[in-house]
Amino acid sequence: MPIAKVHRISANAPDDASGIARAIEEGRIDPRGVIAVFGKTEGNGCVNDFSRGFATMTLTQFFARFMPRADAEKICFVMSGGTEGAMAPHWTVFERAEGEADSGPALAIGRAQTVPLPPEDLGRAGQIALVADGVREAMRDAGIADSADVHFVQVKCPLLTAQRIGEATGRGKTVATSSTLKSMGLSRAASALGVAVALGELQADAIADKDIGDNWSLHSGRASCSAGIELLGHEIVVLGMSKGWSGPLVIDHAVMADAIDIEPVRGALHRLGFAANGQLTGAERDRVVAMLAKAEPSQSAMLRGFRHTMLDDSDISPTRHARAFVCGVLAGLVGHAEIYVSGGAEHQGPDGGGPVAVIASR
Amino acid sequence: MPIAKVHRISANAPDDASGIARAIEEGRIDPRGVIAVFGKTEGNGCVNDFSRGFATMTLTQFFARFMPRADAEKICFVMSGGTEGAMAPHWTVFERAEGEADSGPALAIGRAQTVPLPPEDLGRAGQIALVADGVREAMRDAGIADSADVHFVQVKCPLLTAQRIGEATGRGKTVATSSTLKSMGLSRAASALGVAVALGELQADAIADKDIGDNWSLHSGRASCSAGIELLGHEIVVLGMSKGWSGPLVIDHAVMADAIDIEPVRGALHRLGFAANGQLTGAERDRVVAMLAKAEPSQSAMLRGFRHTMLDDSDISPTRHARAFVCGVLAGLVGHAEIYVSGGAEHQGPDGGGPVAVIASR
Amino acid sequence: MPIAKVHRISANAPDDASGIARAIEEGRIDPRGVIAVFGKTEGNGCVNDFSRGFATMTLTQFFARFMPRADAEKICFVMSGGTEGAMAPHWTVFERAEGEADSGPALAIGRAQTVPLPPEDLGRAGQIALVADGVREAMRDAGIADSADVHFVQVKCPLLTAQRIGEATGRGKTVATSSTLKSMGLSRAASALGVAVALGELQADAIADKDIGDNWSLHSGRASCSAGIELLGHEIVVLGMSKGWSGPLVIDHAVMADAIDIEPVRGALHRLGFAANGQLTGAERDRVVAMLAKAEPSQSAMLRGFRHTMLDDSDISPTRHARAFVCGVLAGLVGHAEIYVSGGAEHQGPDGGGPVAVIASR
Amino acid sequence: MPIAKVHRISANAPDDASGIARAIEEGRIDPRGVIAVFGKTEGNGCVNDFSRGFATMTLTQFFARFMPRADAEKICFVMSGGTEGAMAPHWTVFERAEGEADSGPALAIGRAQTVPLPPEDLGRAGQIALVADGVREAMRDAGIADSADVHFVQVKCPLLTAQRIGEATGRGKTVATSSTLKSMGLSRAASALGVAVALGELQADAIADKDIGDNWSLHSGRASCSAGIELLGHEIVVLGMSKGWSGPLVIDHAVMADAIDIEPVRGALHRLGFAANGQLTGAERDRVVAMLAKAEPSQSAMLRGFRHTMLDDSDISPTRHARAFVCGVLAGLVGHAEIYVSGGAEHQGPDGGGPVAVIASR
Repeated sequence: MPIAKVHRISANAPDDASGIARAIEEGRIDPRGVIAVFGKTEGNGCVNDFSRGFATMTLTQFFARFMPRADAEKICFVMSGGTEGAMAPHWTVFERAEGEADSGPALAIGRAQTVPLPPEDLGRAGQIALVADGVREAMRDAGIADSADVHFVQVKCPLLTAQRIGEATGRGKTVATSSTLKSMGLSRAASALGVAVALGELQADAIADKDIGDNWSLHSGRASCSAGIELLGHEIVVLGMSKGWSGPLVIDHAVMADAIDIEPVRGALHRLGFAANGQLTGAERDRVVAMLAKAEPSQSAMLRGFRHTMLDDSDISPTRHARAFVCGVLAGLVGHAEIYVSGGAEHQGPDGGGPVAVIASR
Repeated sequence: MPIAKVHRISANAPDDASGIARAIEEGRIDPRGVIAVFGKTEGNGCVNDFSRGFATMTLTQFFARFMPRADAEKICFVMSGGTEGAMAPHWTVFERAEGEADSGPALAIGRAQTVPLPPEDLGRAGQIALVADGVREAMRDAGIADSADVHFVQVKCPLLTAQRIGEATGRGKTVATSSTLKSMGLSRAASALGVAVALGELQADAIADKDIGDNWSLHSGRASCSAGIELLGHEIVVLGMSKGWSGPLVIDHAVMADAIDIEPVRGALHRLGFAANGQLTGAERDRVVAMLAKAEPSQSAMLRGFRHTMLDDSDISPTRHARAFVCGVLAGLVGHAEIYVSGGAEHQGPDGGGPVAVIASR
Repeated sequence: MPIAKVHRISANAPDDASGIARAIEEGRIDPRGVIAVFGKTEGNGCVNDFSRGFATMTLTQFFARFMPRADAEKICFVMSGGTEGAMAPHWTVFERAEGEADSGPALAIGRAQTVPLPPEDLGRAGQIALVADGVREAMRDAGIADSADVHFVQVKCPLLTAQRIGEATGRGKTVATSSTLKSMGLSRAASALGVAVALGELQADAIADKDIGDNWSLHSGRASCSAGIELLGHEIVVLGMSKGWSGPLVIDHAVMADAIDIEPVRGALHRLGFAANGQLTGAERDRVVAMLAKAEPSQSAMLRGFRHTMLDDSDISPTRHARAFVCGVLAGLVGHAEIYVSGGAEHQGPDGGGPVAVIASR
Repeated sequence: MPIAKVHRISANAPDDASGIARAIEEGRIDPRGVIAVFGKTEGNGCVNDFSRGFATMTLTQFFARFMPRADAEKICFVMSGGTEGAMAPHWTVFERAEGEADSGPALAIGRAQTVPLPPEDLGRAGQIALVADGVREAMRDAGIADSADVHFVQVKCPLLTAQRIGEATGRGKTVATSSTLKSMGLSRAASALGVAVALGELQADAIADKDIGDNWSLHSGRASCSAGIELLGHEIVVLGMSKGWSGPLVIDHAVMADAIDIEPVRGALHRLGFAANGQLTGAERDRVVAMLAKAEPSQSAMLRGFRHTMLDDSDISPTRHARAFVCGVLAGLVGHAEIYVSGGAEHQGPDGGGPVAVIASR
């Protein structure tokens, strides 16, 4: 029976794989079972954040020491830049092992890859449908039948480049935007809505193309999306609970309605068996294997009736402010700041809020 | 009998006194009773933060509409720049009114001004002694006899300029530093230690000059200091509890041992009569009149065993990271982000932690 | 006969009017003749740059010491934030005095104010027409009949606020954008095109609404525009040459085709009588009274075939990069960096380049 | 006879070696002859600039495709972060080939590596002596006997880490600083003074340890130093003129006395046979193979009597301001911005100025 293992490992730099190496040496990780690594790297998390590419190059080479390079390149590396405030740079390594069946259900991990997205479909209904199909396939891979058992879906999605736009227009097609930067946001947006459709949070026919990247009332409470230039299709990782998996890990999630809406997260902790009266105690803290969250400033420039200045600060990007702040909110509850808080949350949770997943050991 | 009134008022910009104007029009504030205004203004909180001077100029002119300009200039304006994360720019207006005696004790406010500090004493034992005397005088002004009843001491302190250094060296004296910037840190440091001495947290003779700005194990749990070029002596505001004051307001404080040490703050809330199970409820939230905190990254670059990157980020000042993060930690508890979180916390709380005062209505 | 006087005065801070005060005390400036002050202030030049408002408040109060406040408020204060690189913060004070007629022509200054702009006209043909009319009026005020004699036109233009948009939509009108930030760019864009129309650089009927803020091939070589929330119409200052003015000052201008197109500026200096072989010599340098320039990164992200990274830097705003760089280019020619280089150059010079005006004493 | 070849190649990203690959494919570069690559990479050039490490990892792997990895690691990669303003990211590849003797002299390249520096010598006389010896060795390697023929010396120097400090103190030694960051500046400082000693610009016994990193009147007009954690000794590249080398390339240098002191650079261009009246013409421009410069803000905060704000800007590092500005100054002369301008110029040129080397084809 499959067992999902999750390893949270501190990183001293974007090119520091030494913690993973040690875990492999000590037999805690079997590199051939690794299917994904989520990284928080210490760049600005925006356009010119080279810490992400540096980390991906580092990890790809690292894993290529244990397997053919083509296999190392198949591992899903999701690098999220920006460790503002006291957020600790770290890797979360997802591994699939085999073990004894137990009383279950347990954390299940599924993966899927979609076919290349036609450039003219990016940021439009076509992308939503393609991602929704991919999520369903990843659910099948994870052995999760009921979408209610899915608690986190990570999507790596493509973006438009001048070349890809040219290819589409050459075929007489139009594209949603001619801006590479905007295409990243639209791709994340459509991907998140694709997750929502697959999970039954939204109906596909209720989403018009003009809603994508615009109508923030439409959102998924479990999607986390990032765009990358290196792929043409989508890589999808689904985390949920399944009776087909065994092992000590469980997962649950919450949706924060705004940047300080901490009680739903406490609720998820309660459901996972934590007392969570105030901050987690040291013993409880050790049982939290990973916390994965999305954060972004509210477009209203308000938080519970008070003004925030994140959108008007021309010195610091709004996403950097939001990650620092929301990491503080969550760290106050969990008791440390080695938390995966990612920005760029179009349709990923409500405006100003966001989904939070917690993986814990029973 | 004196009554301390505290008004927390949102600001739309550093030059927005409209909220204070409205409170005066509606009779909630009597401008002639105002003795201090603490402001969180939306600059970078560092060297070239002009939002502070802009706010001070605005408020001085504003209050001069209600009193002789010389009186307006006597109001103690403490402007703390930096509203990172979702921290809301706002004013906290401290007013002394007269009212009926009640069962007390209640929030008491005292104020003192020291004589000009000889430049050669800045950042040295002489400044510690001068500030300690000033704090004792402000305690007398507040009617507080026992230093255990003091919960927050705000000190505005001077800095060195080329001219002031020249004046001292002309008299054959040396100064602690020839750097204007460093003199700000030293002045805050010595002022904080002066508060610690006055409150009995430290013994004056246990502090060597070389400890000032260096030995972070020495600190006050109730000091908050900021340096300004516009003054030669010190302006000191003491907040505490006194039987000589009446009215509905009370104050308590906590010391955070690190940036996420939220439980002592919850403890202070409990002592003030809040349930504070998890985040404050809406009704409880309305009773929190003001929260005043200091924040700074730990010099160890670690938080509970995990690395933070605040000290190594050459794009964002460490204090900006720390304010965003700690405001998130506190806002997760209080339920909003109109909190006064100030940086530059030399000897103000332990390294990486800081004092937090809460003013509440009974 | 009118004489235009121009005083370039260093500023130690956004609230430092001491240099102007000294010039008044020493009789070099008659405050009652001052019609405009252009300031380079040391903020970020972007949304949250409070150095501009602080400077305007300071100067308004300062001049109110010499005249009724209403008159002080009529002085046209144009504050341009951002003194990147070695650019020196300074004021350029424009004064109209009376003197003896001489052989002329000489620098002439004219001014106009338009009626309030209906919000629905902002960023559209209506604004272009209104500004063009205003420029023509300012030319008449300056006694300049031929648009070829105009060398610099500074326009302060309004922006949209939620309230102004509501007023317009309440009358059944649409507005060009609902974003306050975008309305600033559109207002500058339409204002620059209005200048181009008034000066005969472009024909009004050749400009479609969709060109505004989009078709950068349309531009003025003499416009400099900035948007401010404090006005509803436009304030326009025209600088040119006129036989109706006397005095020692002259003006000319050049258009840089890109960020390093320095030879046209050298050409303007030659026309003004400078040898300008290489960098200006000390004696020549003293004759340059003011240099006024606009700068912005090219949207192509290229400069003469090589890539620049200004548009992709998420840590520093593109306009900050461009001001630092272009100030270096110009300072290398002039021999100092007390130059007025302003960003936000929509339709003000070609994409990536910009107009440069030089005021010199004969 | 050896021929020095220098290839300036644009880079689209820190991990873009495609331009070098193309040059190799087309036979313009023989990878086995490459002895150094200087890169301008698009990070912030400060502590957390990962574009440098990313570039070094990329280039090391790239060259390892053409030679044993150990040989690829011997290439001297000097990565200078920060392409502010319009500065173009690029590689300058230095290659040693063999060719026919010609009338010479021509550009000569020499290289040396020192033994590991004892940590207690860093930032002290011992490092100056070690570097001076290394420079002399590199001169011999280049076949340059007269130090007057040396025009540029690049030194990569080590820094202190906690471990290295511990090793030294364990042997009863003290170190110059316990701060890793400060040790970088001290190492650059002592290295630059070592260059000055080797070139006869300064006498070793005229330099006291306390002058290092403090007395800016002591400096080299030809040193360019950068500190890196990856080495224990020094890597030194000397560029100069030698009769022992042939080929079309020549080098000269100038020392800018301040950030806009452009005429000495024009003088160097004149000596290299350029008319350089105003900006280089297109034909002349093609003959400039590389321009290498150091830049830093003057510690006086003044430039020719006018204030600059680079040292007081808490949003942008002073070195970023200086690189943008000085690149503009130089680009205005050369006619493009693919220039190597590097910050961190302790004792490398006078305070606020810096050395500039020009490599041109005859």
